[in-house]
Amino acid sequence: METSLSLSPDKKGKLYVVGTGPGSMGQLTAAAVEAIGGSEYVLGNSTYLDMVAPLLEGKKVLKSGMGREVDRAREAVRLSRDSVVAIVSGGDPGIYGMAGIVLEVAEKSGSSVDIEVFPGVTAASASAALLGAPLSGDFVVISLSDLLTPWEVIRERLSLAFSMGVPVVLYNPRSRGRPHRFREAMGIALKARAPGTPAGVVNNAFRDGERVRVTTLRGICDDHDDVDMHSTVIVGGDESSIWRSENGDRIITPRGYHKKYDY
Amino acid sequence: METSLSLSPDKKGKLYVVGTGPGSMGQLTAAAVEAIGGSEYVLGNSTYLDMVAPLLEGKKVLKSGMGREVDRAREAVRLSRDSVVAIVSGGDPGIYGMAGIVLEVAEKSGSSVDIEVFPGVTAASASAALLGAPLSGDFVVISLSDLLTPWEVIRERLSLAFSMGVPVVLYNPRSRGRPHRFREAMGIALKARAPGTPAGVVNNAFRDGERVRVTTLRGICDDHDDVDMHSTVIVGGDESSIWRSENGDRIITPRGYHKKYDY
Repeated sequence: METSLSLSPDKKGKLYVVGTGPGSMGQLTAAAVEAIGGSEYVLGNSTYLDMVAPLLEGKKVLKSGMGREVDRAREAVRLSRDSVVAIVSGGDPGIYGMAGIVLEVAEKSGSSVDIEVFPGVTAASASAALLGAPLSGDFVVISLSDLLTPWEVIRERLSLAFSMGVPVVLYNPRSRGRPHRFREAMGIALKARAPGTPAGVVNNAFRDGERVRVTTLRGICDDHDDVDMHSTVIVGGDESSIWRSENGDRIITPRGYHKKYDY
Repeated sequence: METSLSLSPDKKGKLYVVGTGPGSMGQLTAAAVEAIGGSEYVLGNSTYLDMVAPLLEGKKVLKSGMGREVDRAREAVRLSRDSVVAIVSGGDPGIYGMAGIVLEVAEKSGSSVDIEVFPGVTAASASAALLGAPLSGDFVVISLSDLLTPWEVIRERLSLAFSMGVPVVLYNPRSRGRPHRFREAMGIALKARAPGTPAGVVNNAFRDGERVRVTTLRGICDDHDDVDMHSTVIVGGDESSIWRSENGDRIITPRGYHKKYDY
């Protein structure tokens, strides 16, 4: 990656939107590490910046809190007129991350800044890895946060998603302010899926405090104290099952090889 | 990652299922690189093994062709009784990758091998990064390959997915044997989405021959010569739009911030 060489003389700035993956340095891609390394400014919220602290020495670091995404995107676009700027985003910046709002702000501001998005490992992949192989094939990703999407819309999407029969990954599953929404979502799931359908809860994937729970849809309806806005919940599909292995329970959604091969 | 130290005396083997990301060394996570580095055997198909060739020196490398997934998984499980084994998988092993079949084979064989999955950047994330921010929020992932899933099931899933109004990511979109299926899928999309809905085609993301095309649903129906089994196609959601920027066209699916903030 020849960051500085790729800049044309009349364009001094560049804006990298960089995915930092699920939660530890080991889960960043090499390209993401290089993009941060090649930047003068690094913007992000404290959680993600702390995670990549070893990369920030000598950088101009601008921290801002959760909920300040629009301000942060605007500042990043502004700074990148004359500088190489990285804005970091947990997981994959293209999935509930900063890529969307950065591009929206750049478009609205008429900016001609060159924006490059560095993908990362999203929570669906990270949580699936820890639960076994609950996704495998087709799946749906839905956030239960109604801060930016009306609850009626989310409810309708859940209904269609669960009727597809494929695994469903829930981001931001349970807020402190409206914890009953999670139960409502599980109620929608139960209309389309058997109570014994495998389900998993992952907290703090690949970082301190990691917790992985393999249970069933019924199990998660009865007990979801461990589900909060930072958890990822995966509800298995119609064909998912639980493997009680010596090394712990894992969710497996078969890909379909068993229909074609003996093993 | 202290691979060898984490093995208990009575368990000599370990099996890593390692995601190699979209297509170049820069897109692997550090943990994935370490897992391969700490393995005695590395199994995979030629495409993915060639991609990580710099990591294979001194390893026992077992290559097998596409379509030999079951054999490869069986061999990996067998070898990992006594050895540390890595089986590599393009993108994220948990999404149309090797994690599912490895766990299926291990369960069926009664193996007690300790399996660890290393997540990677999946094609949805990689392609989205190159197209701009087409996903942003909720989305659906569907493979159009009917090798392991009957076409009737895929068709029904497409119908429900497109009626959700959210972006849809298509893996394995167009086979040489049944190219008309892609057109049929686009026909299903057109029943639920406007012809002007943004759509993108990405080939060879983050590797030699990378091609990125931003178009519309109508555009992709009229011209899809560039779509094959290695492409990723993203059909935007009801709110997606195309930003004609100085640096090329990008698809943006707004997250919803514009409903709450001025920018």
